[in-house]
Amino acid sequence: MSHPHPELGPPPPLPVGGLRIVALGGIGEIGRNMAVFEYDGRLLIVDCGVLFPEPDQPGVDLILPDFDYVRGRLDDIEAVVLTHAHEDHIGAVPYLLRERVDIPLVGSKLTLALIESKLTEHRIQPVKVEVIEGERRRLGPFECEFLAVNHSIPDALAVAIRTPAGIVLHTGDFKMDQLPMDGRLTDLGGFARLGGEGVDLLMSDSTNAEVPGFVTSEREIAPVIDDVFRTAEKRIIVASFASHIHRVQQVLDAAYAHGRKVALVGRSMVRNMGVARDIGYLKVPEGLIVDSREIEEWPPEDVVLVCTGSQGEPMAALSRMANRDHPIRIAEGDTILLASSLVPGNETAVNKVINGLSRWGARVIHKGNARVHVSGHAAAGELLYVLNLTKPSNFMPVHGEWRHLRAHAKLARLTGVPDDNIVIAEDGVVVDMVDGQARIVGAVPCGYVFVDGTSVGDITDVALKDRRILGDEGFISIVVVVDSTSLKLTGGPEITARGSGIDPVALEAVVPLLERALQDAAADGISDTMQIRRVVRRTVGRWVSDTYRRRPMIIPVVVEL
Amino acid sequence: MSHPHPELGPPPPLPVGGLRIVALGGIGEIGRNMAVFEYDGRLLIVDCGVLFPEPDQPGVDLILPDFDYVRGRLDDIEAVVLTHAHEDHIGAVPYLLRERVDIPLVGSKLTLALIESKLTEHRIQPVKVEVIEGERRRLGPFECEFLAVNHSIPDALAVAIRTPAGIVLHTGDFKMDQLPMDGRLTDLGGFARLGGEGVDLLMSDSTNAEVPGFVTSEREIAPVIDDVFRTAEKRIIVASFASHIHRVQQVLDAAYAHGRKVALVGRSMVRNMGVARDIGYLKVPEGLIVDSREIEEWPPEDVVLVCTGSQGEPMAALSRMANRDHPIRIAEGDTILLASSLVPGNETAVNKVINGLSRWGARVIHKGNARVHVSGHAAAGELLYVLNLTKPSNFMPVHGEWRHLRAHAKLARLTGVPDDNIVIAEDGVVVDMVDGQARIVGAVPCGYVFVDGTSVGDITDVALKDRRILGDEGFISIVVVVDSTSLKLTGGPEITARGSGIDPVALEAVVPLLERALQDAAADGISDTMQIRRVVRRTVGRWVSDTYRRRPMIIPVVVEL
Repeated sequence: MSHPHPELGPPPPLPVGGLRIVALGGIGEIGRNMAVFEYDGRLLIVDCGVLFPEPDQPGVDLILPDFDYVRGRLDDIEAVVLTHAHEDHIGAVPYLLRERVDIPLVGSKLTLALIESKLTEHRIQPVKVEVIEGERRRLGPFECEFLAVNHSIPDALAVAIRTPAGIVLHTGDFKMDQLPMDGRLTDLGGFARLGGEGVDLLMSDSTNAEVPGFVTSEREIAPVIDDVFRTAEKRIIVASFASHIHRVQQVLDAAYAHGRKVALVGRSMVRNMGVARDIGYLKVPEGLIVDSREIEEWPPEDVVLVCTGSQGEPMAALSRMANRDHPIRIAEGDTILLASSLVPGNETAVNKVINGLSRWGARVIHKGNARVHVSGHAAAGELLYVLNLTKPSNFMPVHGEWRHLRAHAKLARLTGVPDDNIVIAEDGVVVDMVDGQARIVGAVPCGYVFVDGTSVGDITDVALKDRRILGDEGFISIVVVVDSTSLKLTGGPEITARGSGIDPVALEAVVPLLERALQDAAADGISDTMQIRRVVRRTVGRWVSDTYRRRPMIIPVVVEL
Repeated sequence: MSHPHPELGPPPPLPVGGLRIVALGGIGEIGRNMAVFEYDGRLLIVDCGVLFPEPDQPGVDLILPDFDYVRGRLDDIEAVVLTHAHEDHIGAVPYLLRERVDIPLVGSKLTLALIESKLTEHRIQPVKVEVIEGERRRLGPFECEFLAVNHSIPDALAVAIRTPAGIVLHTGDFKMDQLPMDGRLTDLGGFARLGGEGVDLLMSDSTNAEVPGFVTSEREIAPVIDDVFRTAEKRIIVASFASHIHRVQQVLDAAYAHGRKVALVGRSMVRNMGVARDIGYLKVPEGLIVDSREIEEWPPEDVVLVCTGSQGEPMAALSRMANRDHPIRIAEGDTILLASSLVPGNETAVNKVINGLSRWGARVIHKGNARVHVSGHAAAGELLYVLNLTKPSNFMPVHGEWRHLRAHAKLARLTGVPDDNIVIAEDGVVVDMVDGQARIVGAVPCGYVFVDGTSVGDITDVALKDRRILGDEGFISIVVVVDSTSLKLTGGPEITARGSGIDPVALEAVVPLLERALQDAAADGISDTMQIRRVVRRTVGRWVSDTYRRRPMIIPVVVEL
């Protein structure tokens, strides 16, 4: 089994008849999934998603896959296959299409409908290639076969990619609900057929590889939701993901059964459910949904609000309700249902929302106290089925952090994949499949690309480091106006301190030290602005550190007259 | 049941014969526990702990209870009772003793030994009053009886406080392990006896009030640890809390049984285990522990390292090992055991450590994949026992966030405490017990007091807000040197941008706009420095927002000549 190779060099040329696979995101992290396949000079991309930032990436809106690897070869791209419409699989498409707008997007009906409504906001009209499960389609040298998988969004697909180098099966995200809401099962028969033919490389979803056993059916949430509706005294507010069409369908069904009206709250919820309803993926009884602006006219016991904000996003309606900063004023007797997962990293924010809602007397039901969520990703027991049915010659765990990749690799080994044929290829690692053997042959640069505001890539690691220092310690800026030869202060220094917690008045104690330091510098013949700046920074920094044991950023500005 | 009362005013004078209770921390949060009892002009304090900061309190080291309420009455304090030696119960003692050094500290042997070794670092010699379970001691008008409770640190105590106003039972932190490692059971017999006498007010630990059922015995971890030792191929590294003496004892026992040497790593681990060993709470077989500097001399399969860092603290040894920034280089075959809880808020940091360790090939065992931790706090099923045995007339849930307090209040209601006698009193809320009835009568100011470096209280909410803006967006400072009447720039503006992700060269595009804005200002007769500053801030801020959709902090400095 391969280990991290920080020492990997650039890859050699791809041998004739070989298939090259490079993940530009999604391996070593959960998010920004993007895999690039190359055969005979042509490229096929599977997924193009975003990653959400961590606390040590402050102020960042989104993180994109690093497109550098394909940037010089945009015309070689045959298509982007989108396995399903979650943000971590489609979120970076607008940014890729900015570089070449006519790259065909291949996906199922719902996936294309959702990406299209997203692209409209970016004023992009995409080239769409709609496919359905069971279909085969040639995309340049890549013969693609699409297979149904079930997941926490409808209409997800796995893709088998045939080239003369062999068959690669990429599962996309999947689970194996045996009683799915829409009856659309993960196509294990298809997986078995491919296994019979010979899967040369399996790339499979590792998210839940550490979780033993099997994932409960989405259907089993229904009685829990029903119980919530039966016992709710006043308003019911359900928070879920804006893409979880089956979950929202269950809430609509319960509302209908219990005679409550439903209002959808939040732009993405309204947009996605509109799309899903228009193309027949969401069934809405006539008159069930009312405009959210009208909902206050109904008695509390007759309404349900369906909103986003289940991850504690501070600007979402739910957080604002918890803070009494929203027209809906939570009160004793209200019931809040967080019908979603708790995405790692959001625990603190969600806890804050639960406490806020509890404070006002609401009953809060969440996955910690009721079965109101099931995962969208197959657990270890189910991953074994896929490994055993496809019997891959080579295995590459994808869609996971290191802990998940290691756990999935271990499952593969237990089902008989030889150690040498298990490839843990982090983002940027180049894997060549030649003569039926997948091997790491090198690596290409593959950094994080940060989106902040309208700009892509302006935020660098240096800027993030500065933000971390500023966020922890604040800064002190000192503007000194000096005579350029004597270095005597001709204007009292202008000191500004923000976020440092140091009283500006107390800071004046540094002025005499500064004058003395500048005099000493003048005596030493220092006249270069850079050097004077360094004297100021060092004098102030040392005084602050000695006095307060803190290290705010010190910004000296020297104006010479 | 009481609700949050943001409108509460200052409390009236305490009626003669009444008991006043004010929590200065610990209610509405988990941390900085401190309750002040007042009878007949005298004060008794139970616990004096710290709270650890959340991500929206950047750069803060610790949060203290707000001592303002007792600051003018330090001489009225009879004593501080310390229920046990966890940081959230004793961490603020050094800061309180800075205000009056001779306040007697009352606690059990281990509690006093650990606080004393902590105070030595602060160069404080405390006045100690050692008590044992079953003992009664008069502290001014407060007749205190101490009862054994078990918890995740040995020698914890509950305290019953008798005054003519009635009996208050404060549980401290407790669980109800029926087979505790040291045989020291929570004194339910004592609780029942007090219940028979008549508990007028129960103040009880709410941490696990939402968790149904019962907490497993610490003893049940032993076979899991044994299994880890039996199957470990190379080094074993155990991370735990530096105060969890029973857990470390279990690791020492396993090491001894499996013939491995133990090294303790980290200042607090070495210090606390030294104290515990000296007073007989930790049993260490001769020759078992070796110096951590010698541990590399032993073969990996013969050693165990016991360290802190189980919460992902970035400077702890474990995080540094995960980042390959530590002399111990993690390798395939090493086993890491996170034998601790995952404190809410630390999920992301711990996940990063697990991924880092997994990346290098270590096997990581944690509470998510094995029973290597049991909680230190009684769960709902056990809290019911305490409520039923003590049969309190009044109930006040403590030690919890709102979600926990509400859940505990609900349990109290189910056991028959009348709604009107259940008091949810947030920090600063004043509760008077008069004629056997506990009632909220007002509130006193009770803010967060932040420790940053050597200073206490310098960091305000304004500074934190600045830090959040700076951390998310960075800043741009512009120093303009202008002629004081024409407002013409006499020196090109000095622009500094840090953390904004904006190229300083690009920023020069703002100079002509700035010149024009200053000319307009001069034409309007503006000459006041404040107003000029505002013109600069607005011009630059608007340009940045229009160009980049970002809002860095803009710091204008005007030097007039």
